[in-house]
Amino acid sequence: MTIGVRRRMGVEERRQQLIGVALELFARRSPDEVSIDEIAAAAGISRPLVYHYFPGKLSLYEAALQRASEDLASRFAEPHEGPLGARLLRVMRRYFDFVDAHGPGFSALMRGGPAVGSSTTNALVDSVRQAAYEQILSHLEVAEAPARLELIVRSWISLAESTALIWLDGRRIPREELEVKLVRDFAALTAVTAAYDEELRALLRPVLSREPADGPFGDLMTRLIALAS
Amino acid sequence: MTIGVRRRMGVEERRQQLIGVALELFARRSPDEVSIDEIAAAAGISRPLVYHYFPGKLSLYEAALQRASEDLASRFAEPHEGPLGARLLRVMRRYFDFVDAHGPGFSALMRGGPAVGSSTTNALVDSVRQAAYEQILSHLEVAEAPARLELIVRSWISLAESTALIWLDGRRIPREELEVKLVRDFAALTAVTAAYDEELRALLRPVLSREPADGPFGDLMTRLIALAS
Repeated sequence: MTIGVRRRMGVEERRQQLIGVALELFARRSPDEVSIDEIAAAAGISRPLVYHYFPGKLSLYEAALQRASEDLASRFAEPHEGPLGARLLRVMRRYFDFVDAHGPGFSALMRGGPAVGSSTTNALVDSVRQAAYEQILSHLEVAEAPARLELIVRSWISLAESTALIWLDGRRIPREELEVKLVRDFAALTAVTAAYDEELRALLRPVLSREPADGPFGDLMTRLIALAS
Repeated sequence: MTIGVRRRMGVEERRQQLIGVALELFARRSPDEVSIDEIAAAAGISRPLVYHYFPGKLSLYEAALQRASEDLASRFAEPHEGPLGARLLRVMRRYFDFVDAHGPGFSALMRGGPAVGSSTTNALVDSVRQAAYEQILSHLEVAEAPARLELIVRSWISLAESTALIWLDGRRIPREELEVKLVRDFAALTAVTAAYDEELRALLRPVLSREPADGPFGDLMTRLIALAS
C-alpha cells in the first residue's frame, strides 16, 4: 500500500503532501508537540520515507512555514479601489481567517520557542511583514515613506500581530470586533503623529480626503470628539 | 596576575563580574558575535575559567539576560502621584535609557536569532512584559482588567517594543519624540476602544478626569479635534 502510493507520487508532489499534512497538524497543536512519526502516520508513509524528502523536522517545518508565509502574504493583496478603511478591513478579515486556521502554529512561531528562531524562520516572518508594509504604502499612495510614516506602519503591523496572538489565547473578544479595532487603531496611530507633523498631514491628505464620513475612520473621529467633550 | 584576581574574588562575585562584562560587550555588538574568548579577555581571566563559572555561552547569556530583565523591570516602578500622562512619559524615558544602553543585545533578543529562543530567555522576556502590564494596571487603578483593557495594554507594550527596535535601526527619529509619541499612542489606543465600550469608559473615567488639559492626553485631544475639522 505504502509502496503503491509512493509510486504514484513524484518527489515534489510528495513534498507538497507532507507540507500540507504538517500544516494541518500544526494548526491543531504546537509544532513542538508534533513528531515526525505523527506526520508520517498522517501522510500514510513510513518515518524513514519522511526523512527521504526532508532531512529533519526543522527542514519540514521551514518548508511548511514557507508555504504558510506565501499564503498569508497573498491575502494582503487588495484592489486599489474604494475607501481605505474598507480595504484595510477586508485585509484584516483575511488576516484573521489565516490566524484562525493556523492558531497553534502561528502562536508558536510568533511567541518564539525551541522549534523556531532559525535564521530561515526569522527571514520568512520578516518577508511577510515586509509584504504587509509594502501593500500598505501602496494603498496610501506613498512611494517612499518618511521615517515617521515607516514607523507608524511597521509598529502597527506588530500591533496587529500581538492583537492576533492575544485573541488566540482564549478568544475572549469576537474576532470581528478586533478586525474593525485594528483598522481604527491604524487611523488613530496615524492621526497621533499627523497631529504634530505637517509633512505627514500633507502626504496623507489626498487619500484621507476620499474617506467617507460614515466609514471606520470618519465614525471613529466623530466618536472621539464626542468622547473628548 | 590572573591567579591573583581569582584569589580575591568569590564564586558569586566572579559570576557577577562576568555577567557585567558580557552585558557591556552585548551593548556594543550582537551576542551572536561575541565569543567566550572575548568575554574572558575583557574579564582578564582564561577561557577555561569562564567555563568554570558558566557551563556554556547560553548559560552566561541567560544570566546576563536575567540581570538586564530585572534592571528593566525596576525602571517601570513609578510613584502613583500626579497626572498619568506625565508618569507614563517618565517611564518611557527610563525605557529608552535602557534600550539606548543595551542596543545590540536588545535588538538581537527581541528580533530572535540563534542565541535566543530558549524557554529561559522567552520566560524572562515574558516576565518583563508582565511587570510592565501590572504596573500600568496599577496606575490605571484597575485591579482586574476586562478582556478589552488587557488587550489594549498588552498590545501597546508590544507597540512600545517595536517602536524601540525601529528606533535602534538607524535612529532616524529623536528618541525624545518617540517617548512622547508612545504616551499619546497609549491614550489614542485606549480612546479608540473606549469610544465604543461603555464599560471601559466607566472604568477609566476616574483617573482620566484628573488629567490636565495641557498634558500629553489633553493636548493630543485638542489637536485631533482640530485635525478632524
